[in-house]
Amino acid sequence: MNAVKQMKKFVEPKSVALLGASRRTGEDAFNIIENLLSYGYQGRIYPVNPNVSEILGLKTYPRITDINNEIDLAIINLPRSLVPSAVRECTKQGIQSIIIVTQGFADASDEEGKQLQKEIDELIKKSGIRILGPNTLGIANAFINFSSSFRKIELVRVPVGIICQTGVFFTGFPGLRLIGKGIDLGNACDIDIVDGLEYFEQDDDTKIIALHIEGIRDGERFLRAANRLAQRKPVVALKTGKSEYAAQAVQSHTGSLVGKDEVWETALRQSGVIRVNDIDELGDSVRAFSSLPLMKGRKIGIISASGGLGIMSIDACHKFNLEVAKLSSITMERINALSPSWMGISNPVDIWPAYMVQKQPMTELLTESIGAVLNDYEVDAALFMWAPISHQNCSDLCQLLVKLAEAHQDKPLVCSLHGPYAEEARNNLEVTGRVIVFHNPDRAIRALAHLARYSAFRRGF
Amino acid sequence: MNAVKQMKKFVEPKSVALLGASRRTGEDAFNIIENLLSYGYQGRIYPVNPNVSEILGLKTYPRITDINNEIDLAIINLPRSLVPSAVRECTKQGIQSIIIVTQGFADASDEEGKQLQKEIDELIKKSGIRILGPNTLGIANAFINFSSSFRKIELVRVPVGIICQTGVFFTGFPGLRLIGKGIDLGNACDIDIVDGLEYFEQDDDTKIIALHIEGIRDGERFLRAANRLAQRKPVVALKTGKSEYAAQAVQSHTGSLVGKDEVWETALRQSGVIRVNDIDELGDSVRAFSSLPLMKGRKIGIISASGGLGIMSIDACHKFNLEVAKLSSITMERINALSPSWMGISNPVDIWPAYMVQKQPMTELLTESIGAVLNDYEVDAALFMWAPISHQNCSDLCQLLVKLAEAHQDKPLVCSLHGPYAEEARNNLEVTGRVIVFHNPDRAIRALAHLARYSAFRRGF
Repeated sequence: MNAVKQMKKFVEPKSVALLGASRRTGEDAFNIIENLLSYGYQGRIYPVNPNVSEILGLKTYPRITDINNEIDLAIINLPRSLVPSAVRECTKQGIQSIIIVTQGFADASDEEGKQLQKEIDELIKKSGIRILGPNTLGIANAFINFSSSFRKIELVRVPVGIICQTGVFFTGFPGLRLIGKGIDLGNACDIDIVDGLEYFEQDDDTKIIALHIEGIRDGERFLRAANRLAQRKPVVALKTGKSEYAAQAVQSHTGSLVGKDEVWETALRQSGVIRVNDIDELGDSVRAFSSLPLMKGRKIGIISASGGLGIMSIDACHKFNLEVAKLSSITMERINALSPSWMGISNPVDIWPAYMVQKQPMTELLTESIGAVLNDYEVDAALFMWAPISHQNCSDLCQLLVKLAEAHQDKPLVCSLHGPYAEEARNNLEVTGRVIVFHNPDRAIRALAHLARYSAFRRGF
Repeated sequence: MNAVKQMKKFVEPKSVALLGASRRTGEDAFNIIENLLSYGYQGRIYPVNPNVSEILGLKTYPRITDINNEIDLAIINLPRSLVPSAVRECTKQGIQSIIIVTQGFADASDEEGKQLQKEIDELIKKSGIRILGPNTLGIANAFINFSSSFRKIELVRVPVGIICQTGVFFTGFPGLRLIGKGIDLGNACDIDIVDGLEYFEQDDDTKIIALHIEGIRDGERFLRAANRLAQRKPVVALKTGKSEYAAQAVQSHTGSLVGKDEVWETALRQSGVIRVNDIDELGDSVRAFSSLPLMKGRKIGIISASGGLGIMSIDACHKFNLEVAKLSSITMERINALSPSWMGISNPVDIWPAYMVQKQPMTELLTESIGAVLNDYEVDAALFMWAPISHQNCSDLCQLLVKLAEAHQDKPLVCSLHGPYAEEARNNLEVTGRVIVFHNPDRAIRALAHLARYSAFRRGF
């Protein structure tokens, strides 16, 4: 079976067997079958448990070898000492794809853990099987309502795939939609990040790939695969385990090697992978790549209701290596016509004085000024900053922003909103998938910087 | 009148006159009197407007000189050409404290703006008056339900004072409580950051001071005042206007000078002011300083339900110059007793395997493990990371964390929570003011690093 075809058995299984199925249910039972049923997974589920005949209405098999039907994927959730023999049973049954959920192998500090891992390694060598884990939540696939996670997770069909070395990303962070499909590598004793990259390269459900990397066995092979993928889809990587002490901790967490951070920095950059430094930045970047068009250059037009935020945006452009656009004379004239006579017009455009003059309602004022900036051939992306003053104002604002984004589909429009209605506007805009709202100008500009860098990579720079 | 006494007339006025009072009401009328009444301000309010006799039920005076009572503070919200004569009228009336809300002075690009500012400067020189602004929202003081802001703002009695050069901080950012009292300097033609620092030094309502600085006239005087204040209360500063282009923009925003960023970096550090780089960091630091005790050293104990997050925390400690504590043998033994036999115990403590073994319920497990780390003499602060699995679990968790914090009042306990119940737990814990929750481990560690640095400054290092 070719590698991608086998990866599909993991990510898109039509049938799964669970070794170590339990009748215990409820939030702290971490029952994989209960979760699968709650997601509405439509594939066949075979619980394996010699002590009971039925689990949650499903017929239960004493042993995996008692099942006569084809099984795409086996999930092993047994005490670690029972795992090697369970793997052996699976291979007898012709199962090629196995997730080992259990902890206590390369991640353990004792000899038994290492010995058990060796036994599994032998079984992999001797047969054509592939193993995901051990020490993993395994797979999430919102597109078929499937996850092998023992923690119940939220499945949403976003075009984002994640490959990670911790189940934390399956659990999710507030406001981040990082998983349409997820592959938790755990200890990565066999299936590694490259297998994941190859799967996502051919997967049409996935448009953006997020990576959480602690360590990797074959750096060159990874970079080749990442580079090939990055030429088609944005790849964003959170590389952790930077310090020496962290490297030791990685060793005991998943047993993988880390490598010098400076090497990673250069290698990721050259291969077109966008490197991020923390979870906020990962989420911000994925949101930006999910909704915004690529940029033709690095010049940012800024429209703000606050001179102070304008200055923070300039600082951020400087820090993240973007340019504050020099607006064309036509744009300057259009803004000038809106503003009080004493206003010196420049970029960032401070639109508050014009709003105070109130020659025209907010909707027209903002449509005209943001539109002017987006129209400017000197501008590659626009940042707009505002504090909605009421529910009505918030709703008007969202409408006009979506219209502007739709009229300027070749240029990203991002926002940083503040004040008591910022959250409401953020939620309203997020669902439209047209305009992305960030917590502050620094984060907005940082996301645009990633977008600009990736755009340049795609243009061949 | 001494300087602080005069500042009190601004921040704690018992009576205010508003020049440029309007009858227009509603969210987009930006009516200062309407706002004042909605806050429940108990001082006397004198609207000045020659065209109407009553505004929102308040008797209106044609001119400021028609008012026979003492007035602590005048707020001028008139077209800029009328401002100098309004100031002159105020001085005739013996008013010593004036806020000029109006824009278009040093912040304007035309000659008239500069000329009008000169006229105001002359009036300041000739009399004992002091002016806040122009181009400002002025003052906010939640403790007396007062604000001169034309934008309606949220007043909450938190012990945080802010001195800023943009009204944006009055409007607020989601999740940030930056203002119990606020002084928006605007163009700072007269009252400047030092006046604000001196006010907050003696103000018992304010325990933490946040600064937003674009530029300053007299750097040495500022640093002396900041240093004196920092020896009593934490001072956190967001210094913007870093690049050359930003410095030019500052000039046109408020007309103040910026200075080289490296000079600022050193000067702020030496004076004990905590410098932050963006609005998230400002909010995080203020939250940390508001609730957490000072630290005796830089050693962090980390308890996590995820090895992956543990590694991110180590990276963050490395980045922000904190130490990952070497746990004492007693602590290691206590954790070991909870964990499966194969677990190698170290810091970060991965508590998930212990939870999976389920020898005891979560509450006891976490109380014991976090308690052990907080008890450790090798630990100066603890970071706990967890994803609550249900509402009940969330509520249990919050209770046990508050108990732990109360039992260990000498050491900060911070959290990074994730998963679908993270937001709920954050909100529950925030109101207790005992345990601070951050969006991710990097932000938690960064806040502790600021706390550690300030603690060292207070110890004389």
